[in-house]
Formats: sequence, structure tokens, C-alpha cells
Amino acid sequence: MTQCFHTVKELRDYLKPLKAQGKTVGLVPTMGALHQGHATLISNSAKENDITVVSVFVNPTQFGPNEDFDAYPRTLDADLEVVAKAGGDVVFAPSPKEMYPSADDTWVEVTGNITKVLCGKTRPIHFRGVTTVVSKLFNIVGPTRAYFGQKDAQQVEVLRRMVKDMFFDLELRIVPIVREDSGLARSSRNTYLSAEEKSAAVVLSKTLKSALEKFKSGCTNLNDIISFTKTEIAKEPLANIEYVECYGLPGLYELKEEITAPALLAVAVRFGTTRLIDNIILE
Amino acid sequence: MTQCFHTVKELRDYLKPLKAQGKTVGLVPTMGALHQGHATLISNSAKENDITVVSVFVNPTQFGPNEDFDAYPRTLDADLEVVAKAGGDVVFAPSPKEMYPSADDTWVEVTGNITKVLCGKTRPIHFRGVTTVVSKLFNIVGPTRAYFGQKDAQQVEVLRRMVKDMFFDLELRIVPIVREDSGLARSSRNTYLSAEEKSAAVVLSKTLKSALEKFKSGCTNLNDIISFTKTEIAKEPLANIEYVECYGLPGLYELKEEITAPALLAVAVRFGTTRLIDNIILE
Repeated sequence: MTQCFHTVKELRDYLKPLKAQGKTVGLVPTMGALHQGHATLISNSAKENDITVVSVFVNPTQFGPNEDFDAYPRTLDADLEVVAKAGGDVVFAPSPKEMYPSADDTWVEVTGNITKVLCGKTRPIHFRGVTTVVSKLFNIVGPTRAYFGQKDAQQVEVLRRMVKDMFFDLELRIVPIVREDSGLARSSRNTYLSAEEKSAAVVLSKTLKSALEKFKSGCTNLNDIISFTKTEIAKEPLANIEYVECYGLPGLYELKEEITAPALLAVAVRFGTTRLIDNIILE
Repeated sequence: MTQCFHTVKELRDYLKPLKAQGKTVGLVPTMGALHQGHATLISNSAKENDITVVSVFVNPTQFGPNEDFDAYPRTLDADLEVVAKAGGDVVFAPSPKEMYPSADDTWVEVTGNITKVLCGKTRPIHFRGVTTVVSKLFNIVGPTRAYFGQKDAQQVEVLRRMVKDMFFDLELRIVPIVREDSGLARSSRNTYLSAEEKSAAVVLSKTLKSALEKFKSGCTNLNDIISFTKTEIAKEPLANIEYVECYGLPGLYELKEEITAPALLAVAVRFGTTRLIDNIILE
């Protein structure tokens, strides 16, 4: 069974002699409820590093007051098995008090458009929570490489900016979206979906794929691509669109009339009470 | 002559092989215009570490719009000599563009009372600038120990909180205030003072010393100590008090009627256009 540490001290005591020997360390930050997407991050890390640390922490500061912090699935025993099978070495599963030791918080916040568009509009404190907890994990682990999924495309861009601005001495490794056979992007929140909703949610990946084909075949007009994506998704009666947006990469810069490759086409759509995100890179 | 690097890459290339050999690194973050106070920080670091890095960077983000960023003394050649004499090994003197590579900033901010009292009242963005630049320097250098002066007592408490909350893996070393023979606390801003103002400014250290004696002799009432300090300083016609405040240590917690040791008695006072700070620990 994978070793599991709950305190910063235990984890550091474990890592210190290994680092002194010059061993490389991969970090896979997660909120647990591990699925095949996480397993891919872990196995990539295991291939590229001597030691792989998987953090399992449902980070309270990245949830808004009306979001699903309490409902978020917590499945530590199953997670330990996923980590072991994928080749991870240790799990770090701290308590909120361990990660947030003070009554008032110290925040790490990326400012500018990059945190205001897409999910930043409806989840105004989300990315501040993400950058804060990821900074803490970087400082605790001191990884050689850190692994994140392209599924959270905006998070990836925000973290790239943070690593650059704050001079974190590590390499960000971004792993492509892992999908179910149906095309549905793997997500811990998929467990919230009814069978009917889950089948309806396939419209997201299907539409994004069609949008990419449209773009590749020469349709590079921003409004056309956005309208097409909205229209296709809206054909699914259970889909309730929060946003369909497209920004330039890297950095999520604003596009004018034409889409310049590479660009991120990203969607957030509710199925019942469950909010799903998905994206594709137009290039 | 001391080596001086201007880019993060140069400094890291220099430090990397030394760290691989297990050498310890002391970091002394400064804004230059080095005086005997800085020299003491540097020589302390040189005693306790294999390598001492002194950063010289007038950090724009910790100055308010009407503060002395442009006027702040910049004396790199003289600074290099001070560093060499005090036993420092290298100077890191980056440009603002090197330290702030993005158009929008990534901030590290300690929230709560600790950054709102004392200098936080009149310098609302100051500590956010300090914690941001110090975080960057910590990530760039990866020091074993970092050295700061007790002169900036609130900065010390804010940085302690940041190091704890963000899990920086280093030791903060706080060095007592270095004073001129007159008692005046050494500060780069002392160069702004006229001869008359400089002589008047001695009232600060003299009064703080008397307040400590009063406290030690049994006067532990908060209002009495504050009034005494204000009254004594106000006897100096050139002194223009910004604040005289007293908070519990560690963490600058609010005191009620009685002062519990250890507590920080801190003052900010203008002499002409020059704002000086000084403090003493009541214990």
C-alpha cells in the first residue's frame, strides 16, 4: 500500500534524504476522487522522476460559498490504490488546518484578464485559492516537475503565469485531457451526473471536436466559431450553457474578429446541478 | 571586488553547483544604499552560511504613488564595497523588468490586522510589495537562511507569518537594530535629513528607551505608555508624529488595557519631509 503522510513535517522528513541523494521529485496536486485522468498524470510523473508525490487535498479556498465543497467526493482509500497502480510513491493528505495554519490567510494571486475571463467570471475567488494552495505545495515538496491536466485549461495558463512571475524553480508538465470512450472528459464531478445527464454531456466533446474541424477547414471567424459551438450544445435539452469563449494562447489574450492559432475554445455547461467544463485547442 | 549578477539565470547558474555540493546559502534582501545596519546583516550571514547573497533592488511595488521611489538613494558601486568588507560573496542587482516580467502582477499578500496597523495604515500597498518581492527572492535564491533587521519590526512580523503560511523551507534570522552613537537607528533614509533634523531625530531612540525603563519599572498600562511616548516626542519641535502604537508579539495582536510582554512599541515620525520609523520591544 502507498505510504500516506498527513503533516508537512512527515513528508519533508521522507523527502529530505532522497533529495540529498540528488533524486528528482514529481508532484501531482489533486483534490482526490482520483480517476483515469489523474492516473495518467501520476504515471507520466513516475516515468520522468525518481519519486512521485501525489497530494490529495480538497482545498476549501478555491470553492465559492455556494459551491460543492462539502459534497465534493472524498475517497482516500480508493485514491491510495489508484496512486499505487499508477506508480506513485507517496500520498500527501493534509488537513485544512495543516495547510492553512493562521486565522488570516496569506494569498498568492495572479491578477489581470487571465483570472477574470472564463471560469473567473462566475468563480471570482477560485484561482486565488488554486494559486495559493499550489504555491504552498510547491514550497512543501520542492518538486523537480509538477503535473496538471489540460482539462483545467485556464488553471494551466494561470499556473504558467504564476511560475514565471514568482520564479518557481520547477518544470510544469501539462498532460492532455483523458476522455471516456464516449468522449466525455474525465472529471471527479462526473459522479454527480445521472445516467441521462452523463449521456447528454457527450454533446460537449462532440461539439468541440466539430468546432476544431470547422476551424481547420478554414472557418477562423471568432463569432462564427462561438455561435456554432453554442448552437450545437443548445440542441441538447439538458445542457444549460454558462459560457462558450475563445482566447489566444499562451496567456488567454483577447481575440478580435479572427482566431489566431493556437487558441483555446472553452466551455462551461450545467447538466442538472452539475457544472462541467471542457476545452479544445484550435491550432 | 564582489561579483554582481543582474539576471536570475546568472545567479542560478552560479548557485546551482554550490548547492549541489551541499553548501548553505544566506540571503540578505536589501534596497541598497547599504549602511552599518546592512553590514551587520551581511556579516551575520557570512558567519552562519557558506555563501552569502545580497540582493540590491529598489522594489517599485512597495512604494506608494506619493512616496520616495524616484528619490531613494541608489549607490551600487559603494554597495559592492560594503558587501565585500562585510564578507558577502555575491550581489544580485536585477532590473524591475527582470523581477516583474509580466504586464499584470502576481501578488503575495498577508491579510489581517498584521498588515493593517502601524505602517499599514498610511502605506496600504507597502507590505504586499514586500511579501511579493521577498517571495520572488526566496524562490530565486532558495536560501538556507534569510536575514532581516528588527528596525523594520512590522515587516519582520509579516514575513514570519508569510514564511509560516506559505511553508518556505528556510530560517528567518532577525538582527537587532544598529544605531549611530547618538542612538539614531541606521536607515538609508537618514541621508535625507538636514543636520538639524538629524540631531532632532535622536528624540525617537531616547524616548523609546525611556518608555522601556518605565515599563520595566512597573508601568504596564497601554494608554500611559503611549501617552508618555507621544508627549516626549512632541517636545521636539521638528518632530511630526504619524503614529505611536503598541501591539503584542508575536503577530502584532491587539492589546487591551495592559501591555503583556513581549510587546512592540513602534513609532513613525516625520522630520521635515523625511519619515523615520523606530521601535523597541517591551519585555
